[in-house]
Amino acid sequence: MKNLSTFVLAACAACVVVPASAQFAKSEDAIKYRQSSFFIMQQNFGRVAGMAAGKVPFDAKVAADSAAVSNFVSKLPWVAFGPGTDKGESKAKPEIWSNKAKFDDAANKLQAEMVKLEAAAKTGNLDNIKVAVNATGGTCKSCHDDFKNK
Amino acid sequence: MKNLSTFVLAACAACVVVPASAQFAKSEDAIKYRQSSFFIMQQNFGRVAGMAAGKVPFDAKVAADSAAVSNFVSKLPWVAFGPGTDKGESKAKPEIWSNKAKFDDAANKLQAEMVKLEAAAKTGNLDNIKVAVNATGGTCKSCHDDFKNK
Repeated sequence: MKNLSTFVLAACAACVVVPASAQFAKSEDAIKYRQSSFFIMQQNFGRVAGMAAGKVPFDAKVAADSAAVSNFVSKLPWVAFGPGTDKGESKAKPEIWSNKAKFDDAANKLQAEMVKLEAAAKTGNLDNIKVAVNATGGTCKSCHDDFKNK
Repeated sequence: MKNLSTFVLAACAACVVVPASAQFAKSEDAIKYRQSSFFIMQQNFGRVAGMAAGKVPFDAKVAADSAAVSNFVSKLPWVAFGPGTDKGESKAKPEIWSNKAKFDDAANKLQAEMVKLEAAAKTGNLDNIKVAVNATGGTCKSCHDDFKNK
């Protein structure tokens, strides 16, 4: 397979190869990864929340798609809060690492609500979505209060 | 539902509400959204590519998970190349907008290869993964050559 491996490397000139042992090549990558995940999540959740709050017209398809993306991406950032990623361009509070059990609990709560939000959005019923947005938004806010600097 | 809507808004103090009509509230958000998507995709694809190239030990579970994330996220950035998002902190070439058909074709090719990569990674067979990484990496490189500034 040597030839194929060489070919793979050539095709992958545009890629950064990340060791599987360390999830991220460097701390900055971990910080960027979690910030990227949160941003995508927030953009999609915000769209559904806007409909739930009556700020924008309800579109069942957009709500369902956005909730699905939001749910999927809500699983991603947590692996990027590893040891040594507490320094850098980040609003993460030290409590994430000093009170990891509480942080993990908050992360799990968010993910559980995101699952419900996706299910609610799939029903196409705005009242269901309002309930789920409210519960999900509560977990966002609670975690930000405890673990994110302004 | 007025009370619930008010409650939703209060819970959503941490959210940015995005109008459903415009996918993004402002051009910077669109740019950040596509860059975030590409970064998450690259981190996950890079992990699989590292295994395919023999640079890191093969871990079938990590490869399958990373390929699945990479495939999912490969669907996200394209909506964020809308009109008016060609200016700003971006390496996007003007050809994305002036030759949209070609760009869309490149985007579709990447997404098609990502589907195959996820399927290949699920087999747990490294030779299958090498073939798929090579094809996927080729679509990355080709699109970067045509549409991304260095």
